[in-house]
Amino acid sequence: MYFLDLFGIAVFAITGSLVAGKKQMDFFGVIVIATVTGVGGGTIRDIILGQTPVFWIQNPTYLYVTVTFALATIIFARFFNSYHRWLVILDAFGLALFTIMGVEKTLSLGFSPEIAVIMGTVTGCCGGMVRDVLCGEIPLIMQKEIYATAALSGGIIFALVDGVGWGNLWFVMGSMLWIFFFRLAAIRWELSLPTFSLEE
Amino acid sequence: MYFLDLFGIAVFAITGSLVAGKKQMDFFGVIVIATVTGVGGGTIRDIILGQTPVFWIQNPTYLYVTVTFALATIIFARFFNSYHRWLVILDAFGLALFTIMGVEKTLSLGFSPEIAVIMGTVTGCCGGMVRDVLCGEIPLIMQKEIYATAALSGGIIFALVDGVGWGNLWFVMGSMLWIFFFRLAAIRWELSLPTFSLEE
Amino acid sequence: MYFLDLFGIAVFAITGSLVAGKKQMDFFGVIVIATVTGVGGGTIRDIILGQTPVFWIQNPTYLYVTVTFALATIIFARFFNSYHRWLVILDAFGLALFTIMGVEKTLSLGFSPEIAVIMGTVTGCCGGMVRDVLCGEIPLIMQKEIYATAALSGGIIFALVDGVGWGNLWFVMGSMLWIFFFRLAAIRWELSLPTFSLEE
Repeated sequence: MYFLDLFGIAVFAITGSLVAGKKQMDFFGVIVIATVTGVGGGTIRDIILGQTPVFWIQNPTYLYVTVTFALATIIFARFFNSYHRWLVILDAFGLALFTIMGVEKTLSLGFSPEIAVIMGTVTGCCGGMVRDVLCGEIPLIMQKEIYATAALSGGIIFALVDGVGWGNLWFVMGSMLWIFFFRLAAIRWELSLPTFSLEE
Repeated sequence: MYFLDLFGIAVFAITGSLVAGKKQMDFFGVIVIATVTGVGGGTIRDIILGQTPVFWIQNPTYLYVTVTFALATIIFARFFNSYHRWLVILDAFGLALFTIMGVEKTLSLGFSPEIAVIMGTVTGCCGGMVRDVLCGEIPLIMQKEIYATAALSGGIIFALVDGVGWGNLWFVMGSMLWIFFFRLAAIRWELSLPTFSLEE
Repeated sequence: MYFLDLFGIAVFAITGSLVAGKKQMDFFGVIVIATVTGVGGGTIRDIILGQTPVFWIQNPTYLYVTVTFALATIIFARFFNSYHRWLVILDAFGLALFTIMGVEKTLSLGFSPEIAVIMGTVTGCCGGMVRDVLCGEIPLIMQKEIYATAALSGGIIFALVDGVGWGNLWFVMGSMLWIFFFRLAAIRWELSLPTFSLEE
């Protein structure tokens, strides 16, 4: 689980660096945005649950990962084109990883399944939200296509399966894949929920 | 007190849903904004005071209330017109309820009256501020008419009365009504404080 | 150290009041922005490190300082011109004070030097960032000239010196002066880091 966690942080750090690059930030700004994106969701989760000092204070490896992947993105991004596609795919991947890791961590602290599903969704969605707000972009979560609903539904599946005692690594992977493909399908076919609109 | 608290959360959840509807959000977005508006002020208060896990983790009823009232707003809003008037009145009502509940909760944890008044104002104002920032609106608190000053003055009255040992349910109600009518009067007659302006 | 801390809070409260005045806020809004700017960085540090209730709850003197200096700024700002120059100099001074005080406080709580440097940078930069976001300005930290890098480098110097047991008041002053003059030099000669830019 620890390596999946580091992997998710690396993935979100890359998305943060790409959005920062789109805004022509300097190298230090790129590292800051990569770090906030990578550890932001988990930090908000830990603060709400009272698990302080937050996770990256106890193990600075997380920060070395975000700095390393920010620098790697600065160096290697030039060899890729269509970075927007990469951004969307990596963001969906990070969303899937972080949501399930968030549910798992909250359950393992002894909280109820409902709270675990909510904190998983917070873990998955908030890093990217803070990234977009700091960079002056409209948060992906506010855009038309399904985003948080994918995270929430995957979290519910995982919590249910875990609740009946079937939880194992295959179900972890299965719930992550559900979120990942649900989100990509939502982009591909422009799936969206009905909207509530009030006229002025 | 518990029912007053749920009532305040329901009222703020409705205001969150109305602002979200003005922005044509999808159903899930409406639920998220309703929840953040309903529990945001109290969450920030609990985090600053070190009362974690925050209040809604220990009792998920709060979240069922926000989801229920978000869905109710989506269904029933069409039967009302002039939703802006409702938004202003309900927001004033939520401000009054949450400020006094925040003062009361902080005092009951053993903090000083000064801190209680400040945390009451935070509880009352922050939910609506986060709602407006997430929806891309100018926060009501930044607008011309008196807002936080109404909350602060009501909180001071309540803390003084409580300090001399007169605190009872009538004084709770009285301080709430003070805030509610002060805020509505400020809108009706455009009451505002003097401004500080520096020329460029 | 306590007086240096109060001094830093007073300095940041003045910068907050100046930015609020530029936005024609009312007196209460000026006090709120002054307070958030003065205590914001330390509050975020305390929450992340789990030091709650946060520092100003335990000692409301900090809040009396921000209110006093907000009112003093409202009264005396008219006697100065070129307030933008004052804003930049005071902001650099607050950055220097808060970064080193943040490193010192984190070290004294027993955290590692790496974490102390990061939390020092957070303490120094976040108050001004929140000020700028609430006032709808582009954060100074996002602008071209070196800002957080000055804080970070001063924090590293201080942590290294402290680590070899040389820490005394002269080194505290020396690291603060390093940050202060590095930041002012960056503005004067437009020093900036290379940027990372991705084309759309």
